[in-house]
Amino acid sequence: MNVKLVLSLLLFTIGSAAFGQEKPSAKAEKGLIKISVMYPYAEGKTFNMEYYETKHMPMVAGYLGANLVKYTIEKGLASGLPNQPLPYMAIGTFYVKSLSEYQAAVGPNREAIRADFPNYTNVAPVILVSEVVR
Amino acid sequence: MNVKLVLSLLLFTIGSAAFGQEKPSAKAEKGLIKISVMYPYAEGKTFNMEYYETKHMPMVAGYLGANLVKYTIEKGLASGLPNQPLPYMAIGTFYVKSLSEYQAAVGPNREAIRADFPNYTNVAPVILVSEVVR
Repeated sequence: MNVKLVLSLLLFTIGSAAFGQEKPSAKAEKGLIKISVMYPYAEGKTFNMEYYETKHMPMVAGYLGANLVKYTIEKGLASGLPNQPLPYMAIGTFYVKSLSEYQAAVGPNREAIRADFPNYTNVAPVILVSEVVR
Repeated sequence: MNVKLVLSLLLFTIGSAAFGQEKPSAKAEKGLIKISVMYPYAEGKTFNMEYYETKHMPMVAGYLGANLVKYTIEKGLASGLPNQPLPYMAIGTFYVKSLSEYQAAVGPNREAIRADFPNYTNVAPVILVSEVVR
């Protein structure tokens, strides 16, 4: 192969890779299962984001192995409706490939996970299992 | 420059690009504002996912312009806690750069958005504004 051909192939490869990754998260996430752990806001309820981000979420993520695609953390700021209270102080979300694998991994560690709750919050979470449609 | 140098530079560029994009969504999303529109489940409440995905969400997304980074749709499957009802039938989420720009864009279209609700659901949504921490 001559140099021009090699360069052309390389540039084509770069171009294809860039094009294929145009919307990486949207393509990669469709069909995944989300486990969203939502901490409701209420008077007197507390949440330590620093502990949650540096200790609790990494601990739980560590149980999930290769089934875990990614996890996210968000901090509640406000209700999107006027004159409504903040719905949730924080939400932690695990994106996994298989719900049954998630359940099998978390099951034996449920007590350890629950025992860590008082280290960062005094509210019981709501947990939603959902499927990424888009 | 000789051919080896050109090829080395090209390969370095490819390598750097690939490394930089290892976790594209996580890096790109931190600091973004999420507006999560959550439709609670309750007896007798309905939700038409097909209409929501093909008509309602694209309509709202169309108001948001370049401020919108992406939007996602998820379908509620179950509570993550035993013997608890499904918390939400569906959640639609807009990831935006600026909350004030979002509000300015949605404000004049609020009535049109609300008028579309009965086309796919009979439940009033809970709306959470949050910040992506990770």
